Amino acid sequence: MIDVQNQKDTRQIKIQQTGVTGVYLPIFISDGDEVQQVLSKIKFTVALSEKIRGTHMSRLMEILTENISTPLNVLKIKKILQYTQTKLETDFAALDFGFKFFIKKSAPVSDKESLLDIDVQICAELANALNLSLKLEVPFTSLCPCSKEISDFGAHNQRSICRVNLFFADADKISDFNIKSLVELIEAQASSKIYPILKREDEKFVTEAAYKNPKFVEDILRDEVLAIRTLKNLSAFEVECENFESIHSHNAFASHSEKM
Amino acid sequence: MIDVQNQKDTRQIKIQQTGVTGVYLPIFISDGDEVQQVLSKIKFTVALSEKIRGTHMSRLMEILTENISTPLNVLKIKKILQYTQTKLETDFAALDFGFKFFIKKSAPVSDKESLLDIDVQICAELANALNLSLKLEVPFTSLCPCSKEISDFGAHNQRSICRVNLFFADADKISDFNIKSLVELIEAQASSKIYPILKREDEKFVTEAAYKNPKFVEDILRDEVLAIRTLKNLSAFEVECENFESIHSHNAFASHSEKM
Amino acid sequence: MIDVQNQKDTRQIKIQQTGVTGVYLPIFISDGDEVQQVLSKIKFTVALSEKIRGTHMSRLMEILTENISTPLNVLKIKKILQYTQTKLETDFAALDFGFKFFIKKSAPVSDKESLLDIDVQICAELANALNLSLKLEVPFTSLCPCSKEISDFGAHNQRSICRVNLFFADADKISDFNIKSLVELIEAQASSKIYPILKREDEKFVTEAAYKNPKFVEDILRDEVLAIRTLKNLSAFEVECENFESIHSHNAFASHSEKM
Amino acid sequence: MIDVQNQKDTRQIKIQQTGVTGVYLPIFISDGDEVQQVLSKIKFTVALSEKIRGTHMSRLMEILTENISTPLNVLKIKKILQYTQTKLETDFAALDFGFKFFIKKSAPVSDKESLLDIDVQICAELANALNLSLKLEVPFTSLCPCSKEISDFGAHNQRSICRVNLFFADADKISDFNIKSLVELIEAQASSKIYPILKREDEKFVTEAAYKNPKFVEDILRDEVLAIRTLKNLSAFEVECENFESIHSHNAFASHSEKM
Repeated sequence: MIDVQNQKDTRQIKIQQTGVTGVYLPIFISDGDEVQQVLSKIKFTVALSEKIRGTHMSRLMEILTENISTPLNVLKIKKILQYTQTKLETDFAALDFGFKFFIKKSAPVSDKESLLDIDVQICAELANALNLSLKLEVPFTSLCPCSKEISDFGAHNQRSICRVNLFFADADKISDFNIKSLVELIEAQASSKIYPILKREDEKFVTEAAYKNPKFVEDILRDEVLAIRTLKNLSAFEVECENFESIHSHNAFASHSEKM
Repeated sequence: MIDVQNQKDTRQIKIQQTGVTGVYLPIFISDGDEVQQVLSKIKFTVALSEKIRGTHMSRLMEILTENISTPLNVLKIKKILQYTQTKLETDFAALDFGFKFFIKKSAPVSDKESLLDIDVQICAELANALNLSLKLEVPFTSLCPCSKEISDFGAHNQRSICRVNLFFADADKISDFNIKSLVELIEAQASSKIYPILKREDEKFVTEAAYKNPKFVEDILRDEVLAIRTLKNLSAFEVECENFESIHSHNAFASHSEKM
Repeated sequence: MIDVQNQKDTRQIKIQQTGVTGVYLPIFISDGDEVQQVLSKIKFTVALSEKIRGTHMSRLMEILTENISTPLNVLKIKKILQYTQTKLETDFAALDFGFKFFIKKSAPVSDKESLLDIDVQICAELANALNLSLKLEVPFTSLCPCSKEISDFGAHNQRSICRVNLFFADADKISDFNIKSLVELIEAQASSKIYPILKREDEKFVTEAAYKNPKFVEDILRDEVLAIRTLKNLSAFEVECENFESIHSHNAFASHSEKM
Repeated sequence: MIDVQNQKDTRQIKIQQTGVTGVYLPIFISDGDEVQQVLSKIKFTVALSEKIRGTHMSRLMEILTENISTPLNVLKIKKILQYTQTKLETDFAALDFGFKFFIKKSAPVSDKESLLDIDVQICAELANALNLSLKLEVPFTSLCPCSKEISDFGAHNQRSICRVNLFFADADKISDFNIKSLVELIEAQASSKIYPILKREDEKFVTEAAYKNPKFVEDILRDEVLAIRTLKNLSAFEVECENFESIHSHNAFASHSEKM
């Protein structure tokens, strides 16, 4: 059967990324001592030589399917990308996948345990070296300092989200993502952390904690920047905070990025 | 050219609805004294006789395209559906379309004017008589009575949404949707209304208004039910409220429906 | 600490459903011989007496959290709802949850194995008796009979989705959802099934199979209706098909519902 | 009333972007001879000095609201950003907004006219100079060369989308976006263009046109690259194509970017 993909191409364009997107698979993520099965949405691509017409995309799907049973950590991801480079005869391969990761939370007073879902996006690119980024979306409460100051009582507050994208230096040397401790660092900058289960004594605690700790979206962003700067092994980061304002139907926003 | 759609069908199933979905068009909506151009997402369907294999869907697109220049009110929608019944040789036609409608808001103290977008969904079905429903999604603020009561200061509050679906009796007699006044009725049941533009004096007003008017999602729902019961010309209604809790990443919810 | 939720209410409205929405949790689904861990988005509600002001929503979150480790089947879901009725002192409880369920597929010629994700939504309501519905969204290929007939070569085809919602009679007697066999029944009505991994010989097979089996969206819908009518234990069903037309940017659609 | 936003900040972080997101407004877009009212989703931000605690976000909403009545072109957008810099006392302002723009299409044989919606995203940033990018999402048909070649009859085809992001050099000198002609350039690289209204003779035309012009996602991408390279006034571009494969439930993808 003719291999149409393998035909010669004369347009002299090396394609930077081609492959499959919108692939859903259950995979295993290794994080610290823990292995979690997660539902992942995957984009898996390779570079395509200027001499070849098309990619053998079914091979990408085969590689993914072969790797859903073993826990993924940085080393395993790198091995998949190396294998992909060989199998697809290319010098670049990238695996970009997102999933909900669950963090165990204990309510601040009652200690009731619950699971908070965190959106995680991992992007790993292998050319000569490995490039790796980890994006976390962490929800929390923000309480408006202006509203508190000018009002005789109360202060508007709302659900907020902080999106942090970390680009690792020397990605090869990373043994672990440490999602859990990164989430703790990020949510510590909020007016208050949030929890799936709160009994009444916890609700009192969270309400008062937020009221005692009013922060603009810009305050949270700046504190996130200071916190992220303490991380080792980063080459760059991007951070953005978005407050789903309770007094508007639009959002307040702040973003910042730095190279290290 | 052969008309494959018009072939006979022997499966003896009259299809209740077939047509086009996901159609985007700019249309004009007539509401009270006002005509607004809106971006609409449309589902346009007809019944298909058990004797015929397929619908001529291009005719549905032609009818839509011919009707984007004149303002739509109930009478005009009914005429489109009557024309559709004739053109498609069917006894049932339905037009189901959603859009953002903008309501002029004045900030409570400064009187600053701004535009608040409301999601509207109109579903009109013509068999012998016209059936008509109007769905509104109205955003506002809710402030938690429990949090206020048990906390030494502050109270968690958040953006909420109320979705009201009104089914009209005697739809033929309705001359006007009155979107604006329905939105006013719905948002009046909240802890506080919200506004796209709030100067500092307005923010103080909204913060204090919400604090003075704490309501559970169940409180708001019940007050919505009482308010909607005062409307004339309804055959039924559905109402649901959802609070995007500032202290959780999930939502609090309440729903209720009644026939009249 | 005062129990504000437990205050008396005088508005004389029994709320039909109140609870939590947008809750994400990893749960286990039992289907046939198989147990799958899935990521679930959950809505969990109860009725609220006209005498009481609010629901204790944290109890709903506690019940969910306590039940994520054991596989859910119909019996287990019923037990959770019974426990919820007791714990929340109510006569109605409902669990409505959606997830991606993975079906093992073998490519038609090469037999290559892969996993296809199916969107599943289960809604279980317990008043006196148990009401249970199962909604499946099954993707496949459709090829247009008109396009094939009138064109000298080729025929437009596209990805389609069929959404089937099954309402069970005597839900108490169901031991198993049988998701896998229901998916097989639904996809058998398409122009061709689809597969995550197709080698070249499979791609030839699928292309030719679809070309030999042209079907309008109405054809597929009618064949789905005939297929679903063969199922035992149903009290009603809804089915809709949507073709993401390759020659338009809108979709072709057909829907039908029946009581049994 | 105290101006909390205007308090001094000591964290020494100049925030790159802060402002409002998720703002919906009806605006007017000027494109060639045409002015279209569109529904826009807007992100409007400024830089914030390291010396100041917070932005006066209501001013951003006021500026947006004041500018919804006059048609936006590049010159007008620049003036808004200059005014914003002055009003918010900052050296950077950015307006990032998306909308559906409608293109008049004539069916290839019948000449039937219809409106095709194109997703457009404009990002304008003013520091010292104006940076401007225009992103278009253009839908069309792709037909698989491999499927055509290896199959005895037929070939799988599907809806595809091409996303092109154009970064303009000397943005100040651009008088017009020319959305319409850019869409024509992008869709000309597909297996076939698509149309909202197709009569039977048109459907035959489109079906045969696609069959005679089979293209992999990589073929379309390369032809888009060649086409975009002919554009004047660009400093860079990004292009990606995604095929919503009719034989899979995942997508085929290719992307490429270049600086000029």
